[in-house]
Amino acid sequence: MGAKFGKVAIVGMGLMGGSLGRALLKSKAAKEVTGIGRNEKKLAFALKSGAATEVTTDYEAGFLDADIIVFGVPVRDIPGLFRKNYGFMGSRSVVTDMGSVKETIVSEIEKIEKGSGIDRNIFVGSHPMVGSEKTGIANSSAGLYEGGTCIVTPTSRTDKKKEAYVRSFWESVGMKAVTMTPAAHDEKISGISHLPHLLAFLLSNMEAPAIRKNSVIIGRGFKDMTRIGASNEKIWSGIFLENKKAITGDIDRTIAELEKIRKIIRASDENKLKKYIRNARKLRESLNK
Amino acid sequence: MGAKFGKVAIVGMGLMGGSLGRALLKSKAAKEVTGIGRNEKKLAFALKSGAATEVTTDYEAGFLDADIIVFGVPVRDIPGLFRKNYGFMGSRSVVTDMGSVKETIVSEIEKIEKGSGIDRNIFVGSHPMVGSEKTGIANSSAGLYEGGTCIVTPTSRTDKKKEAYVRSFWESVGMKAVTMTPAAHDEKISGISHLPHLLAFLLSNMEAPAIRKNSVIIGRGFKDMTRIGASNEKIWSGIFLENKKAITGDIDRTIAELEKIRKIIRASDENKLKKYIRNARKLRESLNK
Repeated sequence: MGAKFGKVAIVGMGLMGGSLGRALLKSKAAKEVTGIGRNEKKLAFALKSGAATEVTTDYEAGFLDADIIVFGVPVRDIPGLFRKNYGFMGSRSVVTDMGSVKETIVSEIEKIEKGSGIDRNIFVGSHPMVGSEKTGIANSSAGLYEGGTCIVTPTSRTDKKKEAYVRSFWESVGMKAVTMTPAAHDEKISGISHLPHLLAFLLSNMEAPAIRKNSVIIGRGFKDMTRIGASNEKIWSGIFLENKKAITGDIDRTIAELEKIRKIIRASDENKLKKYIRNARKLRESLNK
Repeated sequence: MGAKFGKVAIVGMGLMGGSLGRALLKSKAAKEVTGIGRNEKKLAFALKSGAATEVTTDYEAGFLDADIIVFGVPVRDIPGLFRKNYGFMGSRSVVTDMGSVKETIVSEIEKIEKGSGIDRNIFVGSHPMVGSEKTGIANSSAGLYEGGTCIVTPTSRTDKKKEAYVRSFWESVGMKAVTMTPAAHDEKISGISHLPHLLAFLLSNMEAPAIRKNSVIIGRGFKDMTRIGASNEKIWSGIFLENKKAITGDIDRTIAELEKIRKIIRASDENKLKKYIRNARKLRESLNK
């Protein structure tokens, strides 16, 4: 069987972009992967280590004849890079991204397309729900996407064929593709991904003295709860700021929930407390490991 | 080399008690382990599966000639069982526990000893900082204690020899023993263990609709953050209620911290937000996996 995709151009060869290149080449889903970035050393490493068949700092050359262009950079960098390089994207290329926030990104990009003079309508937003607290091409792996879920976020103007194409692209690296509006994505992902990250950052910062002085008494529970708190500050500050409405709403909900538990504990209401914990236990047990 | 301990009596043959029995027998640190409990089926399983050399529902027989008696039951059950069976404890036995809260437990037990007519002063509080969200003898394992830290919490009246004996007991199953006052223990452990558990319970309950409807989009981060939220409700309601002052104080601190982050996000203060996340990342990176 021939490759499903001829040429895939990936902007940003970090953990996400590098892993995507490896996955596409390993599974032979793509014939060529062009890695685009600024740092020549990192690009050379990507090429040498099998994450790309070609690397370049030149967007025009990189985008030429690409079947699909994937932005794998921090969310806040996506619209600017899209705008700057829109002229180099051909009408037959389909463009997607890997950003963890969708509403602001998708709407900014659609504005750029519509305001560009030649509206090619080539963009379909994506959020492959995989990752790591580690960053960089050195930590990338061909298996990162395998078994994960990718949320594709079409809007009313999205070309249905391009949407299907993007879904099949993520499926080609072993992902399950699901569809949501950008707004539904942001609201849901805020609670199940952005809020947990925020709580992990918060817990590490709150317990800084214990971490510094008493690391011997820090157990597995604390480590599990803060592991994702070792995530990158550029990526995560961008996510929180781009998803400001949903995440501040989730902070409000969290404060209300903490006040509720505090009231139960203060009242020594053992039955209510047991019920609260039992409910949490059963919910967690319903998820796999 | 002969066994370090002749007879060890363990009250409660669940995950903690069962694992302790296995560890003591496997390492040959103890010659005999008597498992004491109410449920004959579970006791029979403990005996058959090598977590004890003898089992009984009779505290008097179980405590007879014990070098060390260990309470491995939920914190709120410890003082009551201690009081009820104090008459069966010999003066040469040393008594300890595995409760996750120390100040209320230790002071209640010292009150029982002092008020008993014959104050044997045989108790030294312990908190082996290991465990699992799983419970029960079926999940017990000989390796649970290996490499963990045990906090021993002597008070002004604690017998120094008995304290050293209890430390050496935990060391015999591969733990590092550290010493703290009961109050210092409760305050520190509230932040690094009780609060993380509370946040895990909270996160599962807050995201109940997402867990029920959208489990396909729930990723590794959320699962890591809620794993300890599958912990037992009897054990954890007891811990929160016995450590009420410290945990409600930590809830207050958490709310204040959430308000602080919310303010930074609302103000779109990217530099402050990056600094906050960078600080959390570096703290977490300073811990091992």
